[in-house]
Amino acid sequence: MNNRITTLFGIQYPIIQAGMVWCSGWRLAAAVSNAGGLGIIGAGSMHPETLREHIRKCKAATDKPFAVNFPLMYPQIAEIMQLAVDEGVKIAFTSAGNPKTWTPWLKERGVTVVHVVSSAKFAKKCEEAGVDAIVAEGFEAGGHNGREETTTFCLLPAVRQATSLPLIAAGGIATGEGILAAMVLGADAAQIGTLFALTDESSANQAFKDYCLAIGEGDTKLHLRKLSPVRLIKGNFTDAVAQAEDAGATADELRELLGKGRAKRGIFEGDLEEGELEIGQIASIISRQQSTAEVMKELVEDYQKALDKLRIEN
Amino acid sequence: MNNRITTLFGIQYPIIQAGMVWCSGWRLAAAVSNAGGLGIIGAGSMHPETLREHIRKCKAATDKPFAVNFPLMYPQIAEIMQLAVDEGVKIAFTSAGNPKTWTPWLKERGVTVVHVVSSAKFAKKCEEAGVDAIVAEGFEAGGHNGREETTTFCLLPAVRQATSLPLIAAGGIATGEGILAAMVLGADAAQIGTLFALTDESSANQAFKDYCLAIGEGDTKLHLRKLSPVRLIKGNFTDAVAQAEDAGATADELRELLGKGRAKRGIFEGDLEEGELEIGQIASIISRQQSTAEVMKELVEDYQKALDKLRIEN
Repeated sequence: MNNRITTLFGIQYPIIQAGMVWCSGWRLAAAVSNAGGLGIIGAGSMHPETLREHIRKCKAATDKPFAVNFPLMYPQIAEIMQLAVDEGVKIAFTSAGNPKTWTPWLKERGVTVVHVVSSAKFAKKCEEAGVDAIVAEGFEAGGHNGREETTTFCLLPAVRQATSLPLIAAGGIATGEGILAAMVLGADAAQIGTLFALTDESSANQAFKDYCLAIGEGDTKLHLRKLSPVRLIKGNFTDAVAQAEDAGATADELRELLGKGRAKRGIFEGDLEEGELEIGQIASIISRQQSTAEVMKELVEDYQKALDKLRIEN
Repeated sequence: MNNRITTLFGIQYPIIQAGMVWCSGWRLAAAVSNAGGLGIIGAGSMHPETLREHIRKCKAATDKPFAVNFPLMYPQIAEIMQLAVDEGVKIAFTSAGNPKTWTPWLKERGVTVVHVVSSAKFAKKCEEAGVDAIVAEGFEAGGHNGREETTTFCLLPAVRQATSLPLIAAGGIATGEGILAAMVLGADAAQIGTLFALTDESSANQAFKDYCLAIGEGDTKLHLRKLSPVRLIKGNFTDAVAQAEDAGATADELRELLGKGRAKRGIFEGDLEEGELEIGQIASIISRQQSTAEVMKELVEDYQKALDKLRIEN
């Protein structure tokens, strides 16, 4: 499974754990990195000093490479970028913003930069910005999502046509077969969120994990298109959102309905009634909570089996 | 590329051309079958006597197997089923209805039955109904679409878990790599709509084909969720729909706005302003009109190249 992504990051397997608010602290990131993938600390839900603590704990827990994900609309973005560089972070995943803003600054400081996109148009912008690799994330992914609503199956060939940059596929991948399929469609690696959000080491609330492990087909939908599209599990809060949207609610009305801190309430505190429950569509096929090490082992084994099956049958 | 789907239909390649209203008459179906795939006449947009004419012309134009697609909400469904059997149709693709209604009747008459689903739940119902194979169609597909909004990447593993029936993947596939990726995810064959709708032999209006070949990312969206979800290209009509939906229009109001015959007006007559323009998300990567024979040749060659690439790299 060695390729230009494993070489770029210095990892064993082309498997990246997505940076996810309220799920991916040092414990998950270190576990993924220790198992041969690339773990990512999600800075989006951390105060600057919390992030510093997570970086330090991650470094203590693994001697393997790991990364930090920076949502570029983070209020004190300059502060956490400087902090991360000071703490010796070597790989940055940036998202939800313009790749040109921070890439040169990070590259000058020796940091490998990966930017997350949901369109081929932004993939080209990433190339111009000088990033080292891109994550292309499809419509089926959990949480915040592109306006184009392009699915992983359609996005990967489009991005592959637009740029030759190392490409990490995201959205809908939770099996070894999924990783191989993404590679067939032009990816060099897979970024996996949902599956890792539901492992033992994820910092999500146990009630949230149990709920996600029990959902079925059609139980996540894209909501809040008038604000910023986000994939959420159905429930009290999304019923209220859907009702407001069906009745023609404006962006301001939706913003008021959303309020503040709902993702924390849902994912971290386990409030399944009023919290914002972000998870990917692929959760519907996941029914068992496992350790990160078990997940990594199965992904690698199933990838190999899928490859062997193709070899034998063709 | 021989497997249980090619054996079931008696075809050379596991490539099925989707039955599509106003696109797939005898000319397209016969061309696909002559090139080694399975062509399908789309009965949904034909009066019974028109369907009879298309079946006869298709039989005259090819001695290879072909199929007819029957949307089960067709008003005179019993009449066209009998007509198709009388005319010697050997393979039926049924969609938009309960697989139990027609499967036994068709099977008793020696017809191979394939049903189209958009969920694992309905895939299981197909198994109970005794169908010979299923098509699992993802959210990215053009035209009418499932309520679960499950994408091809998430739908295939879910259906594969639910049933061991021969499985044809649909939605977002327009390349040889796409066919191989679908197979890695558990499919035995690929059903391709959009790419064939834009070939020389498609009966769609040239203005419609040209428009589809020029669209880009994010230019198709799922609309009319309150009626029956359908993927359409952005334009005058979908702007009016989106505006009505944003303002909280009811299902009845949307039905009135939709009116009758808009798909014919858009796809067959080429009215890009007021017609309903059904096409898949993958149209954004297709920019050239080709003959069906060229399309089939490239699909098979690119599939083989993708397979060889995996063998060499791994």
